[in-house]
Amino acid sequence: MRYLILLLLPFSCAFGQDKQARFTDARSLMIVGKGLPTNPVYQRLDSTQSRRLPKSVQYLATHSAGIAVLFETNSPYIRAKWSLKGHKYYANMTPIVHSGLDLYAQKDGKWQWVGVGRPSEKDTVFEQALIENMDAEKRQYMLYLPAYNELTSLEIGVAPEATLAAPAKAAVDTTKRVVMYGSSILHGASASRAGMLYSSMLGRKTGWNMINLGFSGSGKMEFPVAELLATMPASVFVLDCIPNPSPAEIRERAYPFIKHLLTKRPEVPILLIETVIRQNGYWDKKIGATTVEKNQEIRKVYEKLKAEGYKQLLYLPADNLIGSDHEGTVDGVHLTDLGFMRQAEQVLPLLEKLMKKSGAGK
Amino acid sequence: MRYLILLLLPFSCAFGQDKQARFTDARSLMIVGKGLPTNPVYQRLDSTQSRRLPKSVQYLATHSAGIAVLFETNSPYIRAKWSLKGHKYYANMTPIVHSGLDLYAQKDGKWQWVGVGRPSEKDTVFEQALIENMDAEKRQYMLYLPAYNELTSLEIGVAPEATLAAPAKAAVDTTKRVVMYGSSILHGASASRAGMLYSSMLGRKTGWNMINLGFSGSGKMEFPVAELLATMPASVFVLDCIPNPSPAEIRERAYPFIKHLLTKRPEVPILLIETVIRQNGYWDKKIGATTVEKNQEIRKVYEKLKAEGYKQLLYLPADNLIGSDHEGTVDGVHLTDLGFMRQAEQVLPLLEKLMKKSGAGK
Repeated sequence: MRYLILLLLPFSCAFGQDKQARFTDARSLMIVGKGLPTNPVYQRLDSTQSRRLPKSVQYLATHSAGIAVLFETNSPYIRAKWSLKGHKYYANMTPIVHSGLDLYAQKDGKWQWVGVGRPSEKDTVFEQALIENMDAEKRQYMLYLPAYNELTSLEIGVAPEATLAAPAKAAVDTTKRVVMYGSSILHGASASRAGMLYSSMLGRKTGWNMINLGFSGSGKMEFPVAELLATMPASVFVLDCIPNPSPAEIRERAYPFIKHLLTKRPEVPILLIETVIRQNGYWDKKIGATTVEKNQEIRKVYEKLKAEGYKQLLYLPADNLIGSDHEGTVDGVHLTDLGFMRQAEQVLPLLEKLMKKSGAGK
Repeated sequence: MRYLILLLLPFSCAFGQDKQARFTDARSLMIVGKGLPTNPVYQRLDSTQSRRLPKSVQYLATHSAGIAVLFETNSPYIRAKWSLKGHKYYANMTPIVHSGLDLYAQKDGKWQWVGVGRPSEKDTVFEQALIENMDAEKRQYMLYLPAYNELTSLEIGVAPEATLAAPAKAAVDTTKRVVMYGSSILHGASASRAGMLYSSMLGRKTGWNMINLGFSGSGKMEFPVAELLATMPASVFVLDCIPNPSPAEIRERAYPFIKHLLTKRPEVPILLIETVIRQNGYWDKKIGATTVEKNQEIRKVYEKLKAEGYKQLLYLPADNLIGSDHEGTVDGVHLTDLGFMRQAEQVLPLLEKLMKKSGAGK
């Protein structure tokens, strides 16, 4: 028996302390970034909520963009097991943002980046350390989920002797809810990791619960989407969808869409954002003209609604949304971390103003 | 016959004007970002130059990081055909940066972003438009090549009636050469596209010819690398390799490596950069301690050489290299466009100082 133990010891050491992690299903922890409760939980909308929406929105709503798990632990290491619906490839995104995990922790009252979970090329099931060799201080963590993939399961692993639970006092104020509807840009293309979505950045800065309803290429302002948004608990709405509908679709759909929210939810201020200027539109005359036309159309709708007396509607022109050096995108359309940080800086003071107006959390 | 023409017309229109592009082998245009002439031309070093270097460096030198093609055309559209040695996958990079193309043009005396070439998942040969629907003004363009792949061929397509040639007066001053040696970070991980490598950004800002010799994970200061660097035409050397060698390797290799450059090339000032602080090292005590130790070791070498009287050596500490918000990386180590822009801003004034000192181009 002694020999057996001696033989096994090096084997056990080679695997490392963290292989002995105790895993907990993340559904038993705290989940933020949800417009409504759903089943399954890591989707943004479930089939009962999305059945009247376009097929493409139904599909994209299964992506876990903007959703995060909050927990507290004193473990010196944190592991994750996660599985995805399928393999993804996007020329303009890192695998880490579309299929990986992104971990932050509270330090001195702020969120600070900790580590990522990296997908690999062929697999759809992963187990790995997100961080190791920490001290055993109890901290609050926030783990952002894959932005452009469907997460089918998630477990958090900590040291066997460590605590792991939903936070006693969450650093996300769930009474302050910003419900954001938009395009691939809001959805997260092309942040480097899920914490760099601009909704995620704004959430860390403010401590509010940000709900990301960006639907890549499909944020086209169909009326059933407005009807669904109007059912969601919200302190502020953000409409950042203008990159997706055509000028004609904006002309036709934007007025009834916004009017529905304004009348059904008069207590919820709305921030309406022009489409970001497509950086190749400075050269491609067709793209440039379409972008200008979209913003002319949405501005007309805004002015009409203002003239009707809706004071809870705020408008953000795109002129300076991502700076003036033309370097904020990966492909002319989709913002990088650089572009997202610039956009977040433009949006933040307006959101703060609207949150005061909404009286949420008072 | 008339019927045949009528039948063919819609077919031809459906393909679009740009499908009639006239293609030119990019090797007949102007190539910048090369340490030495090589064969094949899109590699950074060829086998005759790299044969005394570690195998991993020989391989990584086949990647076209930092190399760009300059040309002038009045074509209203620009297409590219390119082929790659193989398919790549990096969890922390976009396919566009490792295997795609990135186009800029001169506008009002500055480089402005124009468009990208996007790889797809399975192919290694591509043909596509980089930009369309422009006016027919004659402009100078710069096309950055794939950062983490081997480019085996490249052709530029323009309208049949348009001009296409190497620029009459290049916007890159090839008498001012900054030869940069480094790690995966310099190599380009994890910019969103090849124009966002920090060597590329610095090249556009200054108009100088930047030579990118970043070798992912393999910038370990072996002496034969110093011997090779000393043979290259250079106005300034940048050594940004400290992320790769261990503290013991720095102790052993850095002094003879730098001393060789200082004595063989006394006319070439050197910028020596500490390793960027690994952002997960703020939590992982082992990683944090190793980073600190590396920078302690390289600083000792710097101080020893300064004490020996070498005045052409400048040292950049990493304290503020990528800001203080911990948001400049995709995975703790590799900089995003946000991190690279911050690093470029730190490095630029020092490079300008050293370029003056070098007397290059006078």
